[in-house]
Amino acid sequence: MAIIMQQTSLHPILAKDCIEVCDLKICKVLLMNDKQYPWLILVPDRPGLKDFDEVNSGDIAYLHADIKKASEVLRTIYKPTKLNIAALGNMVTQLHIHVIARFSNDKAWPNPVWGRHPPLPYNDEMLENVLQGLKNNFELT
Amino acid sequence: MAIIMQQTSLHPILAKDCIEVCDLKICKVLLMNDKQYPWLILVPDRPGLKDFDEVNSGDIAYLHADIKKASEVLRTIYKPTKLNIAALGNMVTQLHIHVIARFSNDKAWPNPVWGRHPPLPYNDEMLENVLQGLKNNFELT
Repeated sequence: MAIIMQQTSLHPILAKDCIEVCDLKICKVLLMNDKQYPWLILVPDRPGLKDFDEVNSGDIAYLHADIKKASEVLRTIYKPTKLNIAALGNMVTQLHIHVIARFSNDKAWPNPVWGRHPPLPYNDEMLENVLQGLKNNFELT
Repeated sequence: MAIIMQQTSLHPILAKDCIEVCDLKICKVLLMNDKQYPWLILVPDRPGLKDFDEVNSGDIAYLHADIKKASEVLRTIYKPTKLNIAALGNMVTQLHIHVIARFSNDKAWPNPVWGRHPPLPYNDEMLENVLQGLKNNFELT
């Protein structure tokens, strides 16, 4: 199903690799379809943004609030060892912020997750459960 | 030479792997001693901070200004293909933000830099030149 942004087109790689969760203050929240890590991606709905330092001063508090909320939700559900936050964009130029729950026994620990192990997609039942848990927590927190 | 923070002790791994550049609004700027990538690390001088979402709302604009300034300086000097911004902390728990200039012909591209290739320290002359270039630009921009 297509993911609708208000002002911005979603990069086709994000649309292919992720599932929509909800909207926050200025970001669309996506779930990376990789069951190896609880992995959210925040995409600011601001046309043309590529780099983190291009976020304008009026939006930065909203972006931080969105990162904070995504972090809280992952902490509440998964009790991770650490959260990894990153704006990389070497392959997908549209600004997107990774918020990843990491565990000291996950497959890539202590390295970053990117490029380590091919993604393992959720099956339908797992995906439904994970999405429901995330949506409930984004509403509650 | 020891790196002095006003309020915070610098994690020993950061002190070992990095060289001090300057102070910004709330962050100490460090240069990672790895000549493969122009790589800055920002360490907020706030005791006990571990995660990006713990930065309080009074500090977030300062932190963003510091990230923006470090980004501008790297862009001005190195004209990179992309900047990678990340707060990971799987190995060093003290909050530190990587700001890395990436190039489409660098050794790790398009993967992130961490854990790919062992660091190659600068020699004394290169280090002096790089530090001087950075310091000049942090003052000018």
